[in-house]
Amino acid sequence: MSDIIQPRVLKGFRDFLPQAESLRQNLTGTLSKAFQQFGFVPIDTPVLEYAEILLGKSGGETEKQVYHFQDHGKRDVAMRFDLTVPFARFMAEHYSELYLPFKRFHIAKVWRGENTQRGRYREFVQADFDTVGVDTAAADFEILSLIRHAMVCLGVPDSKIFINNRGIFNRFLSKAGIAEKSVEVLRTVDKLAKIGKAETERQLAELSSASTAKDIMAFIAGGEGFIATLDRITELAGGDNPDSERLREIWAMIQVCGLDDCVVLAPWITRGLDYYTGVVFETFLDAIPEIGSVCSGGRYNDLAGLYTKQKLPGVGASIGLDRLVAAMEAIGHSSKNLETCRLVILNLDENQEADYQGLAGKLRAAGIACEVFADRKKIAQQYSYAEKKGVPFVLIRGAGEKTAGTWLLKNLGTQVTEEFSNLEKLVQYLLA
Amino acid sequence: MSDIIQPRVLKGFRDFLPQAESLRQNLTGTLSKAFQQFGFVPIDTPVLEYAEILLGKSGGETEKQVYHFQDHGKRDVAMRFDLTVPFARFMAEHYSELYLPFKRFHIAKVWRGENTQRGRYREFVQADFDTVGVDTAAADFEILSLIRHAMVCLGVPDSKIFINNRGIFNRFLSKAGIAEKSVEVLRTVDKLAKIGKAETERQLAELSSASTAKDIMAFIAGGEGFIATLDRITELAGGDNPDSERLREIWAMIQVCGLDDCVVLAPWITRGLDYYTGVVFETFLDAIPEIGSVCSGGRYNDLAGLYTKQKLPGVGASIGLDRLVAAMEAIGHSSKNLETCRLVILNLDENQEADYQGLAGKLRAAGIACEVFADRKKIAQQYSYAEKKGVPFVLIRGAGEKTAGTWLLKNLGTQVTEEFSNLEKLVQYLLA
Repeated sequence: MSDIIQPRVLKGFRDFLPQAESLRQNLTGTLSKAFQQFGFVPIDTPVLEYAEILLGKSGGETEKQVYHFQDHGKRDVAMRFDLTVPFARFMAEHYSELYLPFKRFHIAKVWRGENTQRGRYREFVQADFDTVGVDTAAADFEILSLIRHAMVCLGVPDSKIFINNRGIFNRFLSKAGIAEKSVEVLRTVDKLAKIGKAETERQLAELSSASTAKDIMAFIAGGEGFIATLDRITELAGGDNPDSERLREIWAMIQVCGLDDCVVLAPWITRGLDYYTGVVFETFLDAIPEIGSVCSGGRYNDLAGLYTKQKLPGVGASIGLDRLVAAMEAIGHSSKNLETCRLVILNLDENQEADYQGLAGKLRAAGIACEVFADRKKIAQQYSYAEKKGVPFVLIRGAGEKTAGTWLLKNLGTQVTEEFSNLEKLVQYLLA
Repeated sequence: MSDIIQPRVLKGFRDFLPQAESLRQNLTGTLSKAFQQFGFVPIDTPVLEYAEILLGKSGGETEKQVYHFQDHGKRDVAMRFDLTVPFARFMAEHYSELYLPFKRFHIAKVWRGENTQRGRYREFVQADFDTVGVDTAAADFEILSLIRHAMVCLGVPDSKIFINNRGIFNRFLSKAGIAEKSVEVLRTVDKLAKIGKAETERQLAELSSASTAKDIMAFIAGGEGFIATLDRITELAGGDNPDSERLREIWAMIQVCGLDDCVVLAPWITRGLDYYTGVVFETFLDAIPEIGSVCSGGRYNDLAGLYTKQKLPGVGASIGLDRLVAAMEAIGHSSKNLETCRLVILNLDENQEADYQGLAGKLRAAGIACEVFADRKKIAQQYSYAEKKGVPFVLIRGAGEKTAGTWLLKNLGTQVTEEFSNLEKLVQYLLA
């Protein structure tokens, strides 16, 4: 037996056993429905693309993490590392076949050869939704509203969306005379939750000066309520401006829709990524904020500039499904057994094997998911199978029951057995 | 603008635009439900695996088609080219955490760097379902019954499952004295539909002799009805045997379940693959048999021998989703527009922009998928958007309607506009 290959998966990759995969498919299906409730439509793109397209202008750090290689035709190809870059290529390529605003969602796997030590995986699922071809408060608000709707549909307990507008922040930095360092400042502020206030201020002081760092720390403080915070940062950024006005419009929509309690204006939210230009947001669960944002995104002014001259502004967000599942497990949600099969018809009588199949067919026609135990094993083994699989009922019809014209239904949870002398009644009972 | 990267996908790869992707997700969802009705449970495995595991003993032909490369850690890795090999590795690895019989389904993409000239794709979706750890008629029949159920659920019109048992064929070949050429003979017979009777017989004669070729051609002829055919080939194979008995048991189940019309005993069905050892089957659509089998499979006596000493017999099938979609399109099915969004609320009055969002929230709470047009465009452009997207209704509430306390609902199909002075009634109308 020396030629047995050891069965194992690559580091950072995972198998999903039935329970975990059922949960994931359940979440994915729920999300798709939520997105469609808002008029978002699904698309799909290839897992493999030309490396040139996926890597584009991205720096060394991304390239190091991306799985790329030469295919059989000596083409440099790469596996997608996010869903945004393929979407940009998709929009540039199919622009003329579509309509604007175009609202798409895409739930799919992506791959990054990251360091797995921080509990990160090299293969994981992202759920992205974006509206492109429009730059309005309505589009921004719709994404926020959809994040909220998605969380409710997923059964995620209380969550809050922390929103900011990078435009206001940039105006403030210009006024403070450090516009040329805005990217570094935004990135430093983005680390606030991780590194703490003192270290953030220290790093900001290094980038600018001690007094400017103090001003920035004062700017990013929050907690006064949406409008009070907005008024304060607008003032600090030099007075009324279109970016502040955008947040006011969004706030009006939030109030009309009764989402006041779910959205917080948080000037310290900046998102590290360069390409955001307007509103940015992160979503934290009240019960477990330390797990980080489960849905983040923002507005960008040009999605597909690498591939087309057509300017496509947009706004979008991405849900990290793995993190969400981890968060929900951590607070005791969603660990329930997702029932997929209602009963196992035990195989107790060789003479009835065809009849068991006929019975299964009838139950399924009535909408009851069921199966016939497919082997001739001892009854204890058949019970054990149903229990391990998490099936709630077994149906017993041996030679004796056949003669008596009865069916016995055993509830494996309560261990109670009910006798039926009428198949209709059994079906009704199982459907109830 | 010389630095624009031309947006394009790799040869053999495809984008899925909303209409096509909606259809695919619809089929996938329908299939998942059908599988679960029979007690099959979902699993998932990584797209990338150790090349050693995926390529195992497979010959040069497979290896040439498989995308494989060295990852950042200098590991030889490969993208899965089917769902069977990863399932074998999965069973070997998780054997002790599971229960037998284990019934899994897996719907996922696979990749093969095949010649694309024959209309084949390099990235495509397979839907596999298998029962392992059992070798019984019940398990074989359940797969056949599930194929039928899946076709009905998918709305595929009349289809037939052509079934055979390789065991009987092998007995016949032993009796004919060409057991040592059985693999070649089975492969030649497998090409019958493609190359025709005369060429099949010629190739068989080359493998054996003219008279043996004639005998084989006589053996694989069918058309007498299940039992008559079974009796004839059983006789030719040397009389009663366990493989014939298996088909008799399966036929009894088929009759009890009323599937007589959907299953044909077809001695010419052999399946080219080496690893099938028992029943084998292919599924053809009555209206378009020339497109080939849309669901094929069979019984094997050892799934995971490469990775474990544990012997795992099983039976399973695979649905080629792409071929099925093509077949259904060819016969005029499933080309309908899958409605995902019920109405677009037109953006006609800047003063009502927050109200439009509030209205959308109310409609969604009532279960009506809808959206607010997210830009301030001319009304003609907003209509055009709804039409291109395939949304059936637009809701009109400009300044005039607001003053009058009315809502106008226009059906874009009939071009009829209805006026509502009560929001409840509008909701009822849209839900009807």
